[in-house]
This record gives sequence, structure tokens and C-alpha cells, in this order.
Amino acid sequence: MRNNADAVTAAVLVIGDEILSGRTKDKNIGYIAEYLTGIGIDVSEVRVVPDIEEEIVAAVNALRARYTYVFTTGGIGPTHDDITADSVAKAFGVPIDVDPRARAMLLEYIAEKDLNEARLRMARIPEGADLIVNKVSKAPGFRIGNVIVMAGVPTIMQAMLDEVAPTLGTGRKMLSETVRADAREGDIGGPLARVAAAHPDTSIGSYPFLSDEGRPNTNLVVRSRDPQKLAAAVADVRAMLAELVRG
Amino acid sequence: MRNNADAVTAAVLVIGDEILSGRTKDKNIGYIAEYLTGIGIDVSEVRVVPDIEEEIVAAVNALRARYTYVFTTGGIGPTHDDITADSVAKAFGVPIDVDPRARAMLLEYIAEKDLNEARLRMARIPEGADLIVNKVSKAPGFRIGNVIVMAGVPTIMQAMLDEVAPTLGTGRKMLSETVRADAREGDIGGPLARVAAAHPDTSIGSYPFLSDEGRPNTNLVVRSRDPQKLAAAVADVRAMLAELVRG
Repeated sequence: MRNNADAVTAAVLVIGDEILSGRTKDKNIGYIAEYLTGIGIDVSEVRVVPDIEEEIVAAVNALRARYTYVFTTGGIGPTHDDITADSVAKAFGVPIDVDPRARAMLLEYIAEKDLNEARLRMARIPEGADLIVNKVSKAPGFRIGNVIVMAGVPTIMQAMLDEVAPTLGTGRKMLSETVRADAREGDIGGPLARVAAAHPDTSIGSYPFLSDEGRPNTNLVVRSRDPQKLAAAVADVRAMLAELVRG
Repeated sequence: MRNNADAVTAAVLVIGDEILSGRTKDKNIGYIAEYLTGIGIDVSEVRVVPDIEEEIVAAVNALRARYTYVFTTGGIGPTHDDITADSVAKAFGVPIDVDPRARAMLLEYIAEKDLNEARLRMARIPEGADLIVNKVSKAPGFRIGNVIVMAGVPTIMQAMLDEVAPTLGTGRKMLSETVRADAREGDIGGPLARVAAAHPDTSIGSYPFLSDEGRPNTNLVVRSRDPQKLAAAVADVRAMLAELVRG
């Protein structure tokens, strides 16, 4: 399953000192992961890097070479620490300047007299990029090659993801079914490993949790793109659990 | 400031398909980032990778070569998808087997008759590693070289971090002061960039937010390890804001 040719893959690249210092708690990784999984794109890696140009350039280039898409968040505002657009331009080796289309978008929201040098930073777009409309606060994101550059503010990022999603190639959607084991993880680990080995084309994850009554319990999550393979693995998981109860 | 020789650095490596699929929302990155920042260790990078041995090995080796410490979370439970300990052993090129010390810890919590093959997985420790006591559920974490391997369950991870923290080398603590601008980010971006340029040994971050009354506002966060440099930059930020108000 891991190397399925049907898979469309993505990396998420979170850019910002405030995440690394813990001052701001990231809310975008989980949202993007769930969103992309839901439309048939597998998130294969996430990185968080600081507001340092060489770090952003290196991460963008490592990730865009490896995955179908790269989604970045953060660093496209109007202040000196917003260096994502310039860093992405450098990663692609293309010029960057104020883009007339982006400037026009800003003017839908900001009076011309207020369109100062700082705000014009938000119209700096690498040459050859397509803009991503921002319905919340106008300053656009952009896409260049397979790299999609979005805001860090969650409401704005989410609106940009809605804009860009219909334009993306997607793979066969990953299907999943969760089986509540009603058993401790350590009691099912042995037989579960044998079920997993018998179903190499599915992924079976085991996630312990405490029930509402405070008892250790386990969710088994079976995942496959193929509904028949999924059903076969789920049936074997259920049979294994029934055997344990009898056992 | 970025390359301060006083800096002790760290990477966080989150291991788990469930984070990449969005099924589980990570709660460890922000916690570890804030915790380490508070004791004088700078988190410089975060990665999330799937439960695939070669991915874990590659990430561990890339990060441990680059940062003072690497903190991993996830993948040390009793099931087949828990492959962190084996992957870390492979990254270091050392053997791994059931460790008598770890087995004894498990027996504080689990009856000998229940110490099956699955649970014994949790006692597999790379050769040469030091154990990290787990006060919550006994199965230990471990440290090998500069890599600290912790559980993914937040309460357990937090207990392990408390155990290991006193053993870590720490640098001069990063100090920070937040100045509420009472201005829109786009109105202060220009003068703020000049203040930042005048204080190359401090980092000044700009974070927009909506006030309780729903008005766009901005927090300016000044950071330095040197209290005098911090105070000087904060004074200039305040002077810049006062100047803006005077117009």
C-alpha cells in the first residue's frame, strides 16, 4: 500500500518561529492532513521550520522534489519577518516583484492611500505563479509548480485550501474503518501482528485510549484504497477479536 | 542571534501515520516547544513522518547530526506498527533486544503471566541506551546518544519529559517580551522593519490577532538571550509605536 502507484502525495511545510517557540500552537497541520486525506491526497511528511530564508529554501526544495504537492503555511503577511514568498522564489530560482493582479486584489480591501510599502509586500509573488484567492482578507496565496503557499492564520488558510482543492489532482481515496477492540493493546498485539502480516496491502494501526469508564481500550484502524481488501482485513480483525474473547 | 554559540538546539520528530492522516491531532509539538524554550533549549525544526522504518531512520540521522538533541514521540507501544525503537537502533547501527531493566519495569505494572510477546516489544531497547522512567504506565522511554525517545500519548510523553529534562544541557534562556501594538500589522510593517534592522541581535516577530472587540491588532514579540539588548529593542519598538500615534 505504501508505494501504491495510485497515491497522490503531499507534504505540509509550516513556516514560523512562533510555532517553534511554542508561543503559538499550530492548528493547521491536523486540519490540512484531514482535509487532504478526505479528497484522496496522502500527507506523507510534515516539517516546521523557522523564519530563516536558507531553511525555507532547503525544505521547499527537498519536499517538492519528493511529493506530488507541498502546502506551506505562514510568513506571507506585511512585516519584515514574512519571508515565505521571497524564499519560495529563491527555491525556484525565479524573480519576485509586486504582482499587478495581487495589488488589485489588495485594493478591494485597502484604500489606495493605505497601500504602503509594508502592505505591498503581500502582493510580492514569484514570477510564473498562479494566485489563490483569499475571500477573508484579500491578500492572496499562490501556487508555483507543485508548491501551494498559504497564510498561517487558520481561517484564511482554510479559505485558501477550499479555493485550491478543486484544481488538484487526487488519487483513489484512502478508505478506513475503525474497529473498537474492547481489549488492551498488549493483549491483542500478537494476533494483530499476524492479521497485519496476512494483509500486506492494507495498513492496520492500533491506537490505545481510555474508555468513558476509564478502562484501557484500543481502536484498530484498517486502511486501504481497495474496498474489498479493506473488508477482508476488517473481517479478519473482527474474527481475531472474537477468538480472543472465546480464548 | 540565530547562530548564537550559547544556543542549545533541538528537533522534534513525531512518528505516526495517525497524525499524517489527520485522525489524531498532535498535541505534543506545541507542548515540547514551549517546555524546551522555557528551559533554554531552542526547538529549531519539527518533522512528522509515517510508521515506515526507512523514513524514521533517515529523519533520525538527519536531525541528530544537526541539533544538540532530538526528541521523538510515538511508536513505542506493543503492536506491530510500533517500530520506533527498532528504527532508532538501526539509525545508530546498534543491536536491539529485550532489555532486562525495561522488562523489570514492565513487571511493576503487568503480571508475569500477562507479559506476552506483544508487551515485551515495549522492553526492546537499543544497546547502550539509558532508560527514561515512565511514572504513568511503566513502559520506559530511552535515550541513546543525543536522541530521546518518548511515548506518543501526551500524558506519558509529558511525564517522560519531566524525567529527562534535568539531565539535559541547557543554554542561556531565550527571553521575550510582548508589546501589544494597538495597530494593524500593515500600518507598522515599514517602521518595524527599520527597528528590526537596527537590532540585529534580537528577533522581532509580528503576530496579527483580532481584539475582543473584533478589531485587527498586532502583538510584537521581541526575543533575545541578552536582557540589555532585549530592553533596548523593546524601547525602540515602543518609541516607534508612540511615533505612529503622533502621526
